[in-house]
Amino acid sequence: MPKVSQAHLDARRQQIVDAARARFASHGFAGTSMTDLVAESGLSIGAIYRYFSSKDEIVAAICEQSSGAFPTELTADAIQGFLEHVRTMARDHDHARLVAQIYAEAAISPALGVVVQQQLSALRAAVIDLLPHHKDTDATRIAEGVVAVSVGYSQQLAVRGDLDPSPFTTALMSILDG
Amino acid sequence: MPKVSQAHLDARRQQIVDAARARFASHGFAGTSMTDLVAESGLSIGAIYRYFSSKDEIVAAICEQSSGAFPTELTADAIQGFLEHVRTMARDHDHARLVAQIYAEAAISPALGVVVQQQLSALRAAVIDLLPHHKDTDATRIAEGVVAVSVGYSQQLAVRGDLDPSPFTTALMSILDG
Repeated sequence: MPKVSQAHLDARRQQIVDAARARFASHGFAGTSMTDLVAESGLSIGAIYRYFSSKDEIVAAICEQSSGAFPTELTADAIQGFLEHVRTMARDHDHARLVAQIYAEAAISPALGVVVQQQLSALRAAVIDLLPHHKDTDATRIAEGVVAVSVGYSQQLAVRGDLDPSPFTTALMSILDG
Repeated sequence: MPKVSQAHLDARRQQIVDAARARFASHGFAGTSMTDLVAESGLSIGAIYRYFSSKDEIVAAICEQSSGAFPTELTADAIQGFLEHVRTMARDHDHARLVAQIYAEAAISPALGVVVQQQLSALRAAVIDLLPHHKDTDATRIAEGVVAVSVGYSQQLAVRGDLDPSPFTTALMSILDG
């Protein structure tokens, strides 16, 4: 029954990704070995290597699952909703601390750097798509500002703990109104 | 001659800080041991421990030396100059990659978290001081936005490499005019 088998494979793969997320967020990337992931996931080292050949590959999988949630319109309510989502992910899933680990690793690992650069590029493209009436140069410039605030908010959630998104929403609206 | 002696001590201490900056930026915090700092600095392990009892203390010293350079007025030229300074520090001293390592470590180490929080707080206070004609609540809100863009710019220099600061300057001016 190949269908059941694929579901099983997917669940196992997700089990590894979830264990890695939790461990990377609390101990950092360099502070986590494949052996730690064995303990955290409850799977064998062989099972983990069946799905991922390295920690870098696991981080790439985490990155791929972390996109989405960007608003489909650029109203203050939608922007605030987006930042509230980032805040909730930080609080309930330790996501901001995980992102801080990913950036640090992306800064020194070219392979992971490419993955994060693609994510940032996709985020800028999502903003540009929502600005069809702007000149390309203006939309590109605005997208840089929007992504910078989003990154700055997430990184500060990691270091300062919970933060009301309101001032960041206002900053984003100012940038969009440019 | 105590004066010479103090200069000697200061130079030795700086030698350790400089070696640590270089090594942390290229290999990350968790990927750097005290033994690595011996190799990088050319000093003995005993000499290093005479100045710093842990890696955390060295990172705190790096943080303390990294402040400053924030503009004394909030014109577009001054803001652009500030971001150009951040850019130059990234290019010539690998500073953005170092900052990414520091944030990652601050996210999981409470002691270092306090140091980075104090730096962010000082940066917000510097912005607020330059907005004497704003209501406190407005100045506080604007300062959050300004710091978020600055953090977002620095973190992206670490991951994307060199970036023209112009769109980020425009974003900051929009937030200040907001």
